[in-house]
Formats: sequence, structure tokens, C-alpha cells
Amino acid sequence: MAEQPEVLARLLSRRISVEVERPAGVIIVARGSSDHAAVYGRYLLELATGRPVALAAPSLFTRYGAQTDASGWLVVGVSQSGRTPEIVDVVERLRATGGRAIAITNNEDSPLAEAAEAVIGLGAGEEKAVPATKTYTAQMAAFAVLAASLGTVPWTDGDLALVPDAVAGVLADPDGMGALADRWAGIDQLVVTARGWMFSAALETALKVRETALVSAQGFSVADFLHGPIAAVDPGAAVLALRAEGPAAADVDEAVSALTERGADLQLMPAVGGLPEALAPIAASVRGQQLALELALRKDLDPDAPRGLNKVTITR
Amino acid sequence: MAEQPEVLARLLSRRISVEVERPAGVIIVARGSSDHAAVYGRYLLELATGRPVALAAPSLFTRYGAQTDASGWLVVGVSQSGRTPEIVDVVERLRATGGRAIAITNNEDSPLAEAAEAVIGLGAGEEKAVPATKTYTAQMAAFAVLAASLGTVPWTDGDLALVPDAVAGVLADPDGMGALADRWAGIDQLVVTARGWMFSAALETALKVRETALVSAQGFSVADFLHGPIAAVDPGAAVLALRAEGPAAADVDEAVSALTERGADLQLMPAVGGLPEALAPIAASVRGQQLALELALRKDLDPDAPRGLNKVTITR
Repeated sequence: MAEQPEVLARLLSRRISVEVERPAGVIIVARGSSDHAAVYGRYLLELATGRPVALAAPSLFTRYGAQTDASGWLVVGVSQSGRTPEIVDVVERLRATGGRAIAITNNEDSPLAEAAEAVIGLGAGEEKAVPATKTYTAQMAAFAVLAASLGTVPWTDGDLALVPDAVAGVLADPDGMGALADRWAGIDQLVVTARGWMFSAALETALKVRETALVSAQGFSVADFLHGPIAAVDPGAAVLALRAEGPAAADVDEAVSALTERGADLQLMPAVGGLPEALAPIAASVRGQQLALELALRKDLDPDAPRGLNKVTITR
Repeated sequence: MAEQPEVLARLLSRRISVEVERPAGVIIVARGSSDHAAVYGRYLLELATGRPVALAAPSLFTRYGAQTDASGWLVVGVSQSGRTPEIVDVVERLRATGGRAIAITNNEDSPLAEAAEAVIGLGAGEEKAVPATKTYTAQMAAFAVLAASLGTVPWTDGDLALVPDAVAGVLADPDGMGALADRWAGIDQLVVTARGWMFSAALETALKVRETALVSAQGFSVADFLHGPIAAVDPGAAVLALRAEGPAAADVDEAVSALTERGADLQLMPAVGGLPEALAPIAASVRGQQLALELALRKDLDPDAPRGLNKVTITR
């Protein structure tokens, strides 16, 4: 976790050039926590290219023989290890129909890297703990760098340079998420909600808390949450809301009001100042990691080796 | 709930013709439980058109001013009431850039129907309970009819004709989900998992159980679940697995083994015989409704009016 500022600084200072005509659309192929980085990338790449972005449904290809025609499309495969067979398989199939493939991976000698025409290496070094931390935020940074190479992005180079320090600030925060973990040490359920840019950080925070602290945590878009899933929020139920200044803030405020009215045990994730809304999820994801870590420690769990987890997703 | 066989019979016997050239891709615009019908539609339309299918991120348009170019794309807007402002807004924006729009709605005089060039009316009549039941399965049927008009589908007309009776069989099942609800009357958490075609039914079952029986229920793809979220499954934890005969069955079997090994309180949803895998989720969604209903009754909750839910999604 502590290496994230350094990894991000290296990655975010890269300027890549991707030789691809304006794509017909973009397909992102990912699974697990890479899938949450893909949700972030999905927003970025749609704004940058002005073309729709789809998240691939791998089973369509590997189980049902889909022969989706990706000619003219940009295909982005995302896998930390680069060795998840199903992700490699789908990227190869889409490329065979004419898609132009880019790999985002921490292993530049991997099958995924080989399957693609271009690789954005994460350069994050070995991830020692099972739950992905530095490779996760590095995937987000890779999407940011890719988006900037394809079109306009909602930040300046100056903003980008602030990210490593913002993340270092989160990591150095002496209080961090410790006080919240004390308060929530006994929870067995958690809702994490956000909207827009912060939505991916909500999904990822819920996953990290689930797999590291073994809490039944679930991420929701505020817009969906208010019109259904909120019904199951009892008084005292733990809810973490992620909010950044920007156009989606009012939606989160509306959820905060509704949750307060229901008597939820609500916490707004402390904002990380100085970052534009589109970069705030990187720092927020680190806060989410901190919460998962602190909750795991309160429960005497080993945060580096959650029970029953393996590193490589072996789905074929 | 009981009207579903009739609604489905009417809808599934329709043969529509959609005047659209082979699309560059398909964008589905939906929210809430319609979003789960969209997950089903996403698989169907990608197989039928041979082109990638994207689920729209509404906030990109309504909060961040995205001007995604949808020329050459097919846009499918899904809203039971046809009055969810954000869905109508996104469909109008995509159509303005050249997308060809189809509405799937239960209200053919609605703003969504007006915003589209063609409408597939659900003809389901008034939905009296707040949780959508007949309009939900009708949305699935509408996607099936739409897919058949656009390309090849993984069933025959004869298979399609079996659906209403299969659903009637589920509804008439004297035992239904009652015995399971007895066993699970005290649960406050539920995992619902599936893969491929059945994935949408897992998501929808979790949502119905959550909003009707106020249980913290969460749907997972088996492929994701095994490599992370399964860590939080304690011995005795309630897990419902959805399985249909077909290429994804082996994946579900793998999950069943892993969950059994962990000592989960596992139940395989009783299969509905006779339907091909691609139509099985319609019947499975009805079993999911039954489970939500029966659990709500065990908890003395009013299944027709979950606390804090309104019918029209008012997100602007």
C-alpha cells in the first residue's frame, strides 16, 4: 500500500501515443477488482473518445461462442498478472475480428501483453499481499494516461502531478480510517454508495472490505440505491458515502439526507482536497484500502492473506 | 405476479420488424431493476447483432456533459413507467447524435415512448405492487422479441411458446420457495450467484429479496465470486446458486463445491425443466420473486409496499 505514491508518480508522468484512428467504440475486458478500474476507465474513455464504451461479458465468448465483430474498435484488456486465461482469450478473439488491442498489466511478458498490440505496463513491482492495492490504483492511472492520449480529459497536467502527493497524504494521515474502524469494528454489513466518478471507488472499497475484513459489503450507485436497495437500510446500519466536489455532489447529498432520516450510521468519506472530481477516486480508493486494512486488524485477520483467496484468477 | 404467464404469452408471440441497418453497436439505457433486464438484453443483443453492447452510464450525460456520438448505433431505452427523467434524457441525447432509438416500456404514451422511433409496449397492465414483477419479466421478453428481429437467437419458436407454461408451473408450484423461506426466515444476508444467461436472474433475485424482504442480498457472477467475494462467506451463510443446463453449468458446479467446502448454507434454485438456457432466466426470475415474497411474509412485511420505496425513479 505504501508504495502507491511512487508507482503513481512514475505512471502519471508518462505520455503515451496510441496509434489508433478514432475508434468505433471501446471494449474493456476485465474481471474482479480490475473490473472496478474498468468502470473508472469506462467513464474516462467515453469522454475522451466521444464513443460508447462497453464492458465485455467474457462468458459470451468463452461459454457461448459469440463472434462479436470488433473491427474498428479499441479493445483494452486489464489484468494485473496478465495471466487470467479468460481475459487473454477474449482479447485474442476480439483482436482476431479486427479490434486494436491494448493491454494494461503489471507483467509486460505475460500472455495478455503478447495478445495486445500495445502495452501500458503498470511498473508496480510485485504485489505481496493478495488483495490488489498498488496495482489497482496503478490500473486507474493507466486508464488516465490512456484517456489523455486519445482525447480531452477533465484535468490539467498540473492536476495530475498532485495525485501522488494526495495519495501520500492519505497514507500518512495518522488518524486515517482508524477511528472509523473502531466505530465499525463490530459490523457485519456495509453499504458503500457514490455517484459518477466516485462510483468505481465505492465498488472497489466494498470489494476490499469484503475480501479483507470479511464484512458483507456492497457498493451502489446513489441513483439506483435511493429507489430500491435503501429499503433494507435499518436504523444503525453502517453506510459509507463517497463524495467529491462536482456535478454529482448534490446527488450524494440527497442520499445523505435520506439515510440520515432513516437513522443509518452514516459516514462521509473524508474528502481529499485539491484533486479535480475525475481524479479524486484514485485517492478515495486508497482510503477504502485503509478502511479494509483497519477493519481487518480490529478483527484479528491477516489483511495480506484473506482466507480462501488466490492471486491469479484461474477462470478458463 | 400471477398475471405473468398471460403477459408473457402475449408478448412472446409477437414478431416485430425493426428497420435498422446492422448497427455499429447497441447502447442500452436503464436503471434499477430495468438495469437487470438490460444485463439479460445485453447478452441477447450482442449474440443477435454480432456487435458489442454497452450499458449507458447516465451520469456521464446528465452530470458531466458527455456528447457521445451514437450515429449508426441502436439505442434501447428501458423504463417500466417510461417516465424516469434521466433515462428519457439520455435516450434523447443519443438520438440527437444519430442513434436509432427503441423504447421498451409499459406506457406507450410516455415521454420515453415519444423520445424513441419505435416502441415495444409491455402490455402488462398496471403494476399494483411497488416491486416490479410482471413488468420485469415482460422487459426480458421484450428483449427476446427484439433480439429475434435483429438476428439469430439461441432458441426456436417452439421453445418460446413453452415459457408462459413454465412460468405458470413455477407460480402453481404448491411448495414454491416456501420451504426455503422457512429455512431462511432468520437470515439477514444472502448471496445469489450464477453465470452467463442466469447472471441477470441472480442480480434481480438479490434486488427483490433486498427491497421486499429487507435482507442484505447481493448478486455475483460465479467467475468473480470465486476469486474474491467468497472470502466473506462464513460457515452457515445463506447462498443461492442459479444453474441451468448448458455451457455455464460447470462453472456453477465449481462454485457449489467451493461453497460446500466452506460450509455455506447452500441452495441450488430448483431448475425449470424444458427451457433452453437462454430462456431459463425468465422462469428463474419468477422463482426469485417467490422467494422474496415468502421471506417478506415470514417477516410480517407487506411485500407489495416495501418501506421507503416509490414507484417512479425521479432521478433527474
